[in-house]
Amino acid sequence: MSKCLIAQSGGPTSVINSTIAGIIKANQMNPVYDTVLGGLNGIEGILNERFVDLTDMTDEENRILQQTPAGALGSCRYKLRRDNVDDIKKLIRIMEKHDIETLFYTGGNDSMDTVAALCEYAQEHEITGHRFIGCPKTVDNDLLGTDHSPGFGSAAKFIASTALQTWMDLSVYTRQEVFVLETMGKDAGWLAASACLSGIVDVLVLPEMVFDRASFLAAVKACVRKKNKCYIVISEGIHYADGTLVSAAGEKYAGQTVPGSAANTIRNMILTSYTASRCRVQDLSTSQRCHGTERSLTDVTEAFRLGVSAHMHSADPAFTGKMVALKRRDMETYDTEFIAVDVHEVANKIRYFPAEWILPDYQGITEKAYAYLRPLIKGEPSVMMKDGLPVYCKPYYLR
Amino acid sequence: MSKCLIAQSGGPTSVINSTIAGIIKANQMNPVYDTVLGGLNGIEGILNERFVDLTDMTDEENRILQQTPAGALGSCRYKLRRDNVDDIKKLIRIMEKHDIETLFYTGGNDSMDTVAALCEYAQEHEITGHRFIGCPKTVDNDLLGTDHSPGFGSAAKFIASTALQTWMDLSVYTRQEVFVLETMGKDAGWLAASACLSGIVDVLVLPEMVFDRASFLAAVKACVRKKNKCYIVISEGIHYADGTLVSAAGEKYAGQTVPGSAANTIRNMILTSYTASRCRVQDLSTSQRCHGTERSLTDVTEAFRLGVSAHMHSADPAFTGKMVALKRRDMETYDTEFIAVDVHEVANKIRYFPAEWILPDYQGITEKAYAYLRPLIKGEPSVMMKDGLPVYCKPYYLR
Repeated sequence: MSKCLIAQSGGPTSVINSTIAGIIKANQMNPVYDTVLGGLNGIEGILNERFVDLTDMTDEENRILQQTPAGALGSCRYKLRRDNVDDIKKLIRIMEKHDIETLFYTGGNDSMDTVAALCEYAQEHEITGHRFIGCPKTVDNDLLGTDHSPGFGSAAKFIASTALQTWMDLSVYTRQEVFVLETMGKDAGWLAASACLSGIVDVLVLPEMVFDRASFLAAVKACVRKKNKCYIVISEGIHYADGTLVSAAGEKYAGQTVPGSAANTIRNMILTSYTASRCRVQDLSTSQRCHGTERSLTDVTEAFRLGVSAHMHSADPAFTGKMVALKRRDMETYDTEFIAVDVHEVANKIRYFPAEWILPDYQGITEKAYAYLRPLIKGEPSVMMKDGLPVYCKPYYLR
Repeated sequence: MSKCLIAQSGGPTSVINSTIAGIIKANQMNPVYDTVLGGLNGIEGILNERFVDLTDMTDEENRILQQTPAGALGSCRYKLRRDNVDDIKKLIRIMEKHDIETLFYTGGNDSMDTVAALCEYAQEHEITGHRFIGCPKTVDNDLLGTDHSPGFGSAAKFIASTALQTWMDLSVYTRQEVFVLETMGKDAGWLAASACLSGIVDVLVLPEMVFDRASFLAAVKACVRKKNKCYIVISEGIHYADGTLVSAAGEKYAGQTVPGSAANTIRNMILTSYTASRCRVQDLSTSQRCHGTERSLTDVTEAFRLGVSAHMHSADPAFTGKMVALKRRDMETYDTEFIAVDVHEVANKIRYFPAEWILPDYQGITEKAYAYLRPLIKGEPSVMMKDGLPVYCKPYYLR
């Protein structure tokens, strides 16, 4: 009675469930396991043996799961550290108890470190018969070892489309006005950069640059003088030369520091310096990573197929400590394939937006960056709707 | 050489251009005018004779115009007051000079007052041969005389869908957490109330209620105790018993008061009172009124047909000082028809969310409210896309 176990960790994307659906579907078509289990709320739930049986999901259920954003199995922020031997041992004991051969763990840098830690422990203690496999997902696109991460393309598409639409809204009036769009991205500027696909971004600030107040305001001023408008896009993680975040002016409430808003700081800067007389702000916040009604077909398809590929690879008893990744074979035609990379190459590392893809003076990104980004937002999957709203599956952790 | 002139005023919606496209198309199929002109940036542009000829728009151009959000003709915040006789006279002279028989003006309360002012002046001075016709549009749904306003349904759909999706994102973690979604609506709570269509709203605060800190926090606390989460939706215009806005803590920059954020105030309230240990905020800001990629088919269709109806009505030389409006003939089957109402019934008035549709203790809305809202967000129009982004027409004021 061999089993596999799927779980998720870290922040949601709109295509994590597509990867999970891919694993389930692949096992139905080409059974490697007798049972496909879902672990609720990542490692947290697995340690409490909170499982659901996903083996015999119907095609209808699978299709709805594929289009549901966030994570139907729930998630956790629990990081399984190497020195937490008790939990590592417990987790492996639970896998043995339930005949779980393979753990598929979808997540980002931290989750890949969890996969690495489990794999190392098993190898050091000569515990055999278990595979630990990582499936990448992050809207931030900051994972190494893969051309891009499932989840990024859909978030990028939503951001570019929202940039285009809010720019049109901004433009209808003749008055002088500036718009500041804030995207996620603490360390890496991929999401903010993707707003440029809209073709309307005037000023772009990424965490990979140094934010300099004077030159930034000069760039905005020059644009306002020319167009009477300026459309600015920033990442949440933009910072000054000494590393201080632009959003640093956070406040403390009841012991919790509420992060300041980089966009509001920028707006105040623009108004107090008389750079422009009006300034609107749009912080895309949570909506950018779970907007299931506006996903990229490329992204959704790749996320599903990545699940299929991970399942297929897992048939090999030696396949462990790996993350299934995307490799772009051809830049011109956008031809991709799935490869396997060692999780140690990925764990706890950050893939930054390349410095050579950034134009000087906050002017945006290079043609190479556009060529990289463009294919990732292409295509629109059909969405099952009911009464004007998307049909989503009820999260398993709430059933 | 009779002409008509179409112009827009006030804030954008995602279906204004559908109404304009409807007028243009109607005149092609059943010509009332030799020429259909567009006035750029509302009254502002008309006073400067900034016109574009829309008469012979191709089907392809019309289709793209229909799916383009915001206002392709631009807008203005200029309010033509009755005592501004110079501008009123100038506008009517310009209409005479260009043989413009009919002015179609799309807008909200203020714009209907402009239509009323023009109409009154013409009647008082026995200036004949001109018709002034209002076409309603506002995401706020606060126009009297019409069952609902074009633009509202699409904004409501985007809000409900975003509420559903961000709730799913919030739910994936086991931790205690509250979410605050802020919608537009200074005076009327229609947009915030429409978030309830998602089925996940725990606490709702509208401008039609009095906001009371203690009972609000008690409602949130009770919900957090039960579910470990609480999903809150508020209108920007929520206020205390004495009328002070919850967002009142705005700051002054360079002479301009930057409005405070109601959602941030609520968050701070929740954290400092230890009502919950975490709180996220999403202010939908500009994006909710121009999200052209997620419109309601009902809304788009009605906006277009309203243009057709306004054009048809305008064939009657006596049809002036009217707003073409929607009447719901049947609540059960959602059967609507177009009617004409006197602009004086609409101008400068506000249609509030009915008090009898609001549940006590911030618990949301009644079944009657759901029955009213549900049909308005139904259906999805197809959207022409290119390279992953919607195809929109270039605004005429930028050509």
